[in-house]
Amino acid sequence: MFKVKAYAAAAADAPLAPFSIERRDPGPHDVQIDILYCGVCHSDLHQARDDWGGALFPMVPGHEIVGRVVKVGEHVVKLKAGDLAGVGCMVDSCRRCDPCEADLEQFCCEGFTGTYNSRERGSKALVFGGYSEQIVVDQRFVVKVPENLDLQAVAPLLCAGITTFSPLRHWKVGKGQKVGIVGLGGLGHMGVKFAHAMGAHVTMITTSPEKGQDALRLGADEVLVSRDAEAMKQARGKFDFLLNTIPVGHDINPYLALLKLDGAMVLVGALTALDPVLGVNLIFGRKSVAGSLIGGMAETQEMLDFCGEHNIVSDIEVIRIDEINEAYERLLKNDVRYRFVIDIASLKAA
Amino acid sequence: MFKVKAYAAAAADAPLAPFSIERRDPGPHDVQIDILYCGVCHSDLHQARDDWGGALFPMVPGHEIVGRVVKVGEHVVKLKAGDLAGVGCMVDSCRRCDPCEADLEQFCCEGFTGTYNSRERGSKALVFGGYSEQIVVDQRFVVKVPENLDLQAVAPLLCAGITTFSPLRHWKVGKGQKVGIVGLGGLGHMGVKFAHAMGAHVTMITTSPEKGQDALRLGADEVLVSRDAEAMKQARGKFDFLLNTIPVGHDINPYLALLKLDGAMVLVGALTALDPVLGVNLIFGRKSVAGSLIGGMAETQEMLDFCGEHNIVSDIEVIRIDEINEAYERLLKNDVRYRFVIDIASLKAA
Repeated sequence: MFKVKAYAAAAADAPLAPFSIERRDPGPHDVQIDILYCGVCHSDLHQARDDWGGALFPMVPGHEIVGRVVKVGEHVVKLKAGDLAGVGCMVDSCRRCDPCEADLEQFCCEGFTGTYNSRERGSKALVFGGYSEQIVVDQRFVVKVPENLDLQAVAPLLCAGITTFSPLRHWKVGKGQKVGIVGLGGLGHMGVKFAHAMGAHVTMITTSPEKGQDALRLGADEVLVSRDAEAMKQARGKFDFLLNTIPVGHDINPYLALLKLDGAMVLVGALTALDPVLGVNLIFGRKSVAGSLIGGMAETQEMLDFCGEHNIVSDIEVIRIDEINEAYERLLKNDVRYRFVIDIASLKAA
Repeated sequence: MFKVKAYAAAAADAPLAPFSIERRDPGPHDVQIDILYCGVCHSDLHQARDDWGGALFPMVPGHEIVGRVVKVGEHVVKLKAGDLAGVGCMVDSCRRCDPCEADLEQFCCEGFTGTYNSRERGSKALVFGGYSEQIVVDQRFVVKVPENLDLQAVAPLLCAGITTFSPLRHWKVGKGQKVGIVGLGGLGHMGVKFAHAMGAHVTMITTSPEKGQDALRLGADEVLVSRDAEAMKQARGKFDFLLNTIPVGHDINPYLALLKLDGAMVLVGALTALDPVLGVNLIFGRKSVAGSLIGGMAETQEMLDFCGEHNIVSDIEVIRIDEINEAYERLLKNDVRYRFVIDIASLKAA
């Protein structure tokens, strides 16, 4: 074991503060990573404040991790010391169930081990996330980061990136399709970039005309302001696919109306109760609503390779670790374009 | 034009009563059918009583029609006098839009012309359904009925049959799959028969253990009583596909829990508001909820051919036309196993 500096919440009502944690020495399959940047996901805030219940304290959040490999175990083949590496939302899974066998560790039948707010498999030991100097992770849950990208802006790809890339791939979004991205935040802005790079005609669907303008800069072809009843009416039946990134329960019926015959809307943000859906809105048009959860490790690697090829990164605002509590407050007001990323050098220097 | 006897509702609050209607003389593409049997769909009742608004009176319900061809127009090739023929929920559509071109007339962009409670295209003339002696329909909307089946029990296939067959086909239900049919009524009992004939392992999911027993007779392999919390818990994550035939808004969350990774539930009955769906129930497991509406004419023919091959018909109770008002009352109490069919001879003799 070795000690590293971190930032942790001691309890649901405590601000994040400096904290010392222990990391395991890398075993034969482990990768030891010196963390350089860590993205700030909205779920970091929800978990640190125990908004969803069952939070485990002390908690070191952070699951959008990039850094450089310091050391690898003897059986590690895919990475070596000096490589750029990434860690996302998972650090382990059962590895035996059908979803794990199918490279869909995010749907592990036993539940995956989260990067933080979780316990090591077969142990009571808490796992700690990326608001820390170093992390040690089994190679299956470490991805290679392309060297040609702006590293600090890569961090959010490990959660916001894969969460939007995976459904666009799974539902085969591409050329000739009209795709709508609903909501422009950490997830939505990545959805626009990916759908555009995949060749789809992309419409940003947002409540805010200003955000809509920014979406054009990100790669959207059009903007549809969802508060504009006439525009929403004109857009009925026009979309093959909608990626809905709204992070809270809401009324999806107006969006269902935008779908073509056999169109699908996929939810990636809203975990809570949606407003009542009218059956008729699915039955007429054979439409569907589905959900999607991050992505498996193989697909996470595919996403990063795609980003390397298409030069895609997140739009970010870099902060120091001692600004994290303030950043959480700004997150609550959606005051970020579009992701905070912590420069971990500020933690090492503290 | 020629006159035929029918039964009609004069207004939303009027019982059905004898009524005389005019049918057009068959044009070059028309098929004139002597009606032998007409099924009684739950929607007949809803429309005759204007439960959904916008009902057109006088209304002659009935869209599960079988009979014998009397005469065909000069351009009719697929049927000839003496053939057994069927007419379902549609008698026309625009025939030019993408869905029509794709043999999905039920999703016609201009809206299909219903067999009753509708107007002829480009005219104010009301169209009248199958509670009548004869009907004249364009050949595109007439199907051939296999001669080897019990004709009176074929009638409900034209709506209840295609409504359940179409989604089972579209979602590729077959061997090696675990399929649940939710709700046992006119639709559900056909769902059981079709899913069984397609080779799936079929579970009837119902609130009633007695109905469950009857489902075994219809071809179900298992019964899951949805009020049995322990059984519902044991069945979590076991189903590839659920066909939900419940005819009213309800809580679909407990059924979503039954689906496997990438499982789909398709609604064919509930047009109204569902209880709030929790996004997390779709996101974890990448599950989907969709809807499906009857089926196109080509698929309706395919369904009847499938029924001929597998010797599938509905379970019915035959009534006289003067019993229709009483039958509606019994429908409201779900007191039918599983479809009323009117013997149109009773109308001709009246």
